[in-house]
Amino acid sequence: MTNTRRIFIEWGDCDPAGIVYYPRYFEWFNESTDALFRAAGVPDRAMIPMVDTRAKFFIPSKYEEELIVETTLLEFRRSSFDVQHRMLKNGALAVEGFETRVWTVRDPENPERLRSEPIPAGVRARFFA
Amino acid sequence: MTNTRRIFIEWGDCDPAGIVYYPRYFEWFNESTDALFRAAGVPDRAMIPMVDTRAKFFIPSKYEEELIVETTLLEFRRSSFDVQHRMLKNGALAVEGFETRVWTVRDPENPERLRSEPIPAGVRARFFA
Amino acid sequence: MTNTRRIFIEWGDCDPAGIVYYPRYFEWFNESTDALFRAAGVPDRAMIPMVDTRAKFFIPSKYEEELIVETTLLEFRRSSFDVQHRMLKNGALAVEGFETRVWTVRDPENPERLRSEPIPAGVRARFFA
Amino acid sequence: MTNTRRIFIEWGDCDPAGIVYYPRYFEWFNESTDALFRAAGVPDRAMIPMVDTRAKFFIPSKYEEELIVETTLLEFRRSSFDVQHRMLKNGALAVEGFETRVWTVRDPENPERLRSEPIPAGVRARFFA
Repeated sequence: MTNTRRIFIEWGDCDPAGIVYYPRYFEWFNESTDALFRAAGVPDRAMIPMVDTRAKFFIPSKYEEELIVETTLLEFRRSSFDVQHRMLKNGALAVEGFETRVWTVRDPENPERLRSEPIPAGVRARFFA
Repeated sequence: MTNTRRIFIEWGDCDPAGIVYYPRYFEWFNESTDALFRAAGVPDRAMIPMVDTRAKFFIPSKYEEELIVETTLLEFRRSSFDVQHRMLKNGALAVEGFETRVWTVRDPENPERLRSEPIPAGVRARFFA
Repeated sequence: MTNTRRIFIEWGDCDPAGIVYYPRYFEWFNESTDALFRAAGVPDRAMIPMVDTRAKFFIPSKYEEELIVETTLLEFRRSSFDVQHRMLKNGALAVEGFETRVWTVRDPENPERLRSEPIPAGVRARFFA
Repeated sequence: MTNTRRIFIEWGDCDPAGIVYYPRYFEWFNESTDALFRAAGVPDRAMIPMVDTRAKFFIPSKYEEELIVETTLLEFRRSSFDVQHRMLKNGALAVEGFETRVWTVRDPENPERLRSEPIPAGVRARFFA
């Protein structure tokens, strides 16, 4: 399952070299994973923290350019899953992102803490029906 | 009462014109008011939302420059108070900020909501002893 | 002349109190003024620095809520102008912003510096035809 | 060669879950690499774009906590190099970052473009004397 978003690059996204300040890509990745789960109809998306993320940068982007982000759920494991982001500029791969997140619930004995949990079958079914 | 902080301008604080992207000043103002109340020994600082803020920009600043922020509590009213920020670069006033915040507590009937409340005498005493 | 934008509030726009971290509003204001001038067909928008800005906060907003920003050019003076932003949530005024910016050009004797300049008649005509 | 920085976690660094919004870590990594090269005495640090970066998250961090970042230059290759960041909270590894950057110069035929270039011997010598 893939979800697609359009990113318009604002002035404040760019640095003195005139290109996107790269931490911004991770903000867009986070929003894109969120949008993927929203599109899949998963209600509570706050409890899936990041454990590992990576990005490769191929083409810099500038103010007023437009990027298309294609976000794909690659694989569910027992309690973690992988997401890929492909950011395209005029059809060419500009940035690629990967992330591994863990499904968590609040620990019933200590609601301040999160505990990893098997990904519910109902969530899996929304992606791979 | 005045609290002073040093701000080192990072690459990511600046925009393609090479100067600080101005919303960043409001982040520094928020951190500076927080630091003022921390220095004064006020324990819970999450419950004083902003109601009105203003900034005047006199001198732009660039990557690797350093600003000194002087943050002063100007006045306490019944449940609101005013803070001033003066950002100096090499002794000259670069940016000036003003803000009005309101003292709030969680509404006991609806903990999702905040309710304005008279500023406790103990808090006032920490600033104007 | 008024330009309207839709803002979807992302997870990363919000703070531990669960509401929009207020410096984010100034980012949206900056993007909105930029969008207003883009919609008006003004080509170079990098050279209109902020000199004075203010915001009043009436209703906090949360993750996944939507705001409508109505951005209006209020008045042109010789070399400065005023812009107003009204951010509406479900039709109610949530945040109001004001800003004064100055029209500048690069100083021909020192391209590192900006110099205020009368707003070109061609720019005025795009707003008040 | 390792450079060490202290990070104080501000309110605006955190999200509605009360923990650091993870793109912020990449801002701190970028600042830390910059600080490493500044400490090494490398004058122009704008021309070393990121090509690949990764982070692993072990322990979440909250408002008012303090992190120590240890940034190490791992290896120079012909025109690229690797940097590692270890973020410690109370001595425990909280976040680990890796990055590969490329040494570039402005293309003399097109100053808008960057071109990779062998890392100067003078730069190498500042790290591995």
